[in-house]
Amino acid sequence: MQNLKNSTHLTDSDIEHLQHNALHKTYNKGYNIHGDDGTCTGVVFINSGIIRIYIMSDEGKEITLYRLYEDDFCMLSASCVLQSISFEVHVDAETDCDVFVIRPDAFRNLMDRNLYLANYALNTTVGRFSEVMWAMQQVLFMSLDKRLAVFLYDEYARTGRLLIKMTHEQIAKHIGSAREVVSRMLKYLSRDGIVEVVRGGITILDKSKLQNLIHN
Amino acid sequence: MQNLKNSTHLTDSDIEHLQHNALHKTYNKGYNIHGDDGTCTGVVFINSGIIRIYIMSDEGKEITLYRLYEDDFCMLSASCVLQSISFEVHVDAETDCDVFVIRPDAFRNLMDRNLYLANYALNTTVGRFSEVMWAMQQVLFMSLDKRLAVFLYDEYARTGRLLIKMTHEQIAKHIGSAREVVSRMLKYLSRDGIVEVVRGGITILDKSKLQNLIHN
Repeated sequence: MQNLKNSTHLTDSDIEHLQHNALHKTYNKGYNIHGDDGTCTGVVFINSGIIRIYIMSDEGKEITLYRLYEDDFCMLSASCVLQSISFEVHVDAETDCDVFVIRPDAFRNLMDRNLYLANYALNTTVGRFSEVMWAMQQVLFMSLDKRLAVFLYDEYARTGRLLIKMTHEQIAKHIGSAREVVSRMLKYLSRDGIVEVVRGGITILDKSKLQNLIHN
Repeated sequence: MQNLKNSTHLTDSDIEHLQHNALHKTYNKGYNIHGDDGTCTGVVFINSGIIRIYIMSDEGKEITLYRLYEDDFCMLSASCVLQSISFEVHVDAETDCDVFVIRPDAFRNLMDRNLYLANYALNTTVGRFSEVMWAMQQVLFMSLDKRLAVFLYDEYARTGRLLIKMTHEQIAKHIGSAREVVSRMLKYLSRDGIVEVVRGGITILDKSKLQNLIHN
């Protein structure tokens, strides 16, 4: 918990308070740390291992929100600590894990006394918010890069030429997107050495990588 | 900004600082307040009106995250203020709006000096996180007919009117679907006598059947 101490102006006695209220636990890979029974588990500090945070539909469909690693801590397993959190997640050990679980009331108590700790915990949670948004957008908006790859490959197959003579605007119309987005995506593909943006069009540099993109 | 003052231990001179750095603006319904050009607009305080916060896919598909009302304030239009936010949203005036827009650097500056304000802003953002999770779960896990029913019922509850004045296209944007699919689904619901598609909108004919759909 040294990280936490450095970032939050905790005194030695604060740290002691947390340690007194922390359980040292080890979980086997696959163990459900939080979420199945609706209790407020506590703040989980990861000494080693990886945990996965996800949501689950009524029918059991899972969506991974993000993962946490060594030295990270998980606030969503202690959502009762943050009054503004009103949703539930599941937390699993994705590998064997060694963690401290701090009792939610003890953590809450210290947050009330120490604004820096509150600030740190909130900031961390807002950071996770960003990760969740990223995951959600991936899921919600099926990847445009795949569609672009399909289009480029089809053009190559149709014309027999690796140079596709089209503006980004024209390609955007073909795949139902916007010019800016196509340009951005082509930049990603050229960074990966798959295509090259040239005067008057796009050249396919690596057909097999392009196919990989389509089929993955 | 009285609310803010009460919740955050701001001094009169802090409030003055914010007021000096606030622009009083009025927006017409439908105006894009934030998000189209990638700039950090600022913290938006709503004096009157409703704003809608949403994300947009590469193809222009919109997913509404939440709405804000009188006396609420929007931090995501000032994501540069919160370092832990790394995603972009769009913000539109859903009705005519009267707002204050506080310059991001001025707000950041005060947050750095006043931990109470920082915590308040972060807490509010974490609260929005909860609303976003709710919206996302709706999109990800609910069948579309249910989502449509929830949306129609919420609109009725919000406006107090059984006539929902929206095009199928608009509804599709709200629930993260396509116009064709919404039209098809509305046809199913009207066959069951739950709604009627009328000129300029949809009329709810049977509230209890609509609720049944939501809860089954």
